[in-house]
Amino acid sequence: MPTDQKQGEVMRGVMMYGPGDVRVEERAKAAIIEPTDAVIKLSATCICGSDLWPYRGAEATGDGPAPMGHEYIGVVTEIGDQVRTVKVGDFVVGSFVASDNSCEICAAGYQSRCIHNVMMGAVGTQAEYARIPLADGTLVATPGMPSADLIPSLMAASDVLGTGWYAADAAGAAPGKTIAVVGDGAVGLSAVLGAKQLGAERIIVSSRHPQRQALARAFGATDIIEERGDAAAAKIKELTGGYGAHGTAEAVGTQESMWQAIHSTRPGGYVGYVGVSHDVSLSGIELFFTSVHLHGGPAPVRRYLPELIRLIWDHSIDPGKVFDLTLPLDRAAEGYKAMDERRATKVLLTL
Amino acid sequence: MPTDQKQGEVMRGVMMYGPGDVRVEERAKAAIIEPTDAVIKLSATCICGSDLWPYRGAEATGDGPAPMGHEYIGVVTEIGDQVRTVKVGDFVVGSFVASDNSCEICAAGYQSRCIHNVMMGAVGTQAEYARIPLADGTLVATPGMPSADLIPSLMAASDVLGTGWYAADAAGAAPGKTIAVVGDGAVGLSAVLGAKQLGAERIIVSSRHPQRQALARAFGATDIIEERGDAAAAKIKELTGGYGAHGTAEAVGTQESMWQAIHSTRPGGYVGYVGVSHDVSLSGIELFFTSVHLHGGPAPVRRYLPELIRLIWDHSIDPGKVFDLTLPLDRAAEGYKAMDERRATKVLLTL
Repeated sequence: MPTDQKQGEVMRGVMMYGPGDVRVEERAKAAIIEPTDAVIKLSATCICGSDLWPYRGAEATGDGPAPMGHEYIGVVTEIGDQVRTVKVGDFVVGSFVASDNSCEICAAGYQSRCIHNVMMGAVGTQAEYARIPLADGTLVATPGMPSADLIPSLMAASDVLGTGWYAADAAGAAPGKTIAVVGDGAVGLSAVLGAKQLGAERIIVSSRHPQRQALARAFGATDIIEERGDAAAAKIKELTGGYGAHGTAEAVGTQESMWQAIHSTRPGGYVGYVGVSHDVSLSGIELFFTSVHLHGGPAPVRRYLPELIRLIWDHSIDPGKVFDLTLPLDRAAEGYKAMDERRATKVLLTL
Repeated sequence: MPTDQKQGEVMRGVMMYGPGDVRVEERAKAAIIEPTDAVIKLSATCICGSDLWPYRGAEATGDGPAPMGHEYIGVVTEIGDQVRTVKVGDFVVGSFVASDNSCEICAAGYQSRCIHNVMMGAVGTQAEYARIPLADGTLVATPGMPSADLIPSLMAASDVLGTGWYAADAAGAAPGKTIAVVGDGAVGLSAVLGAKQLGAERIIVSSRHPQRQALARAFGATDIIEERGDAAAAKIKELTGGYGAHGTAEAVGTQESMWQAIHSTRPGGYVGYVGVSHDVSLSGIELFFTSVHLHGGPAPVRRYLPELIRLIWDHSIDPGKVFDLTLPLDRAAEGYKAMDERRATKVLLTL
């Protein structure tokens, strides 16, 4: 029996006790539960903008301390009896939603809404080890063991890159298209990178933050505007001959950002929204007359992973640049604080 | 100078004086104003479900009596100096929105949101003659003078058929797909017809009305369910292996019908909504986790007109069956009353 399975073994992991109270402590070590599970030893994990919702008290954390984290890369240490394609020793990347990758929803490319989906946030991957349900469907192996410089970019692929990419894809990014991006956080910047890779001709980003503006340009932004809300939408109409963008990627999730995205887009255009829309309410009659395509939700990162890993492995893209603070796992609380106080865009946790 | 242009000439047309008060009376005869206009002598017009909103007081009618109607077919009697493709004597069908059919929005297939669009409701086509702005972009000529039996179907193409067709198209109707339809009015029934023509394998319609159920089946519905709202969505999930429809056409425009459509659709599926969404408010967070594509608005009927006219001319489709009451224009008030009291689904007005 592998040592990981021994009764009473522990690992270090991030637990949230309540708003603002994050601790790294010992918890039961990840182990196989279902025969379709794998266990991985993490090489890195990270803190997501969505982890700040409970940190700020905007989302309930449930009774008692909750394990945190849903992003992960690492080496497979153990597999269940029914795992067929994933092998012990593989270096793997997975999405923040485990999926069977075989149901009709997965087959259509919506693995984040797999009929058997498991939200990895419930597992908690800000830890030394993690149990990955539905391992064959969820995990994608890299061509070999990555060099250290690839770790941040592979880490980004687990959520933030795939989420931004999906927003750009849902916004219809393609050759000849003008794509607007609302949000200059890690997801918005990843949407810029995605739009560029998908061939967009012009990429217009709302940002007032000099470092983020610089990274947006490095990722492919052609125009930076400082306006927000309807003023930003008006500016984008002005920049596009009165028509509006062909598509807009929304990566914030507020009432203002949603309407900014919708109003920045021409009739018949596409809005891809991935900001988790807290406190957003859309008037049906107003939406009706915009005539946009509105599509978003939890990104089906698994759909894009093989392509994203290939581009990272080839050094064609460097999405790891979104990490502007790196800390060891044991100092995760500092990472949450830095993101909450907007001193960091995205925090990488090393192991 | 054509006699239509003579000063002081009049025609008979429908005017709404206020909620419930519709009269047919003399008004100034339609005449060329812009050099891109045409004038048509109507062969038929009709009453739209959307005409009931002001009739019921749910939409303001403005100061004083307003001309009514936005659906029209007829013969061109006059053209402006800049009209190039439309000729006097042509029998034409146009959409409820006049469009230049050449701007970027039109070129992308969204003529209902043309950058120079004119809503025909402001012109008022429930009349003997109508001025058609942007005639070259708006009007599509039939292959010749239609026989009387084709008049109802050509009339349907002006709005209700094109609107239902667009809803089916936006819902992703195609071979192998299961499409749900919310609404058994003239637009919903047209969506059934559209879904069938676009190749849908299975078409599930919510209806409790025996005659409408029968017409739905004649148009291609494979399943009729009597449930409404979330019960209908649950029934559709049950009928589709737990997944939900691949796409849903929404043709009502209420809070309940919008959520019925969204909840009837699988993650990654398509909701095409054309019911004018009065008093609809969509929770962003709830929409986020449905992962549907949401697309709709005023239908770009002009996009579909050449194909619809061809299918009608060939007797491949008979969308005129949605008219279950035919009255002469002078008795339009009876038509409004019959639709308001749900004694008629859709009223054809003859001239």
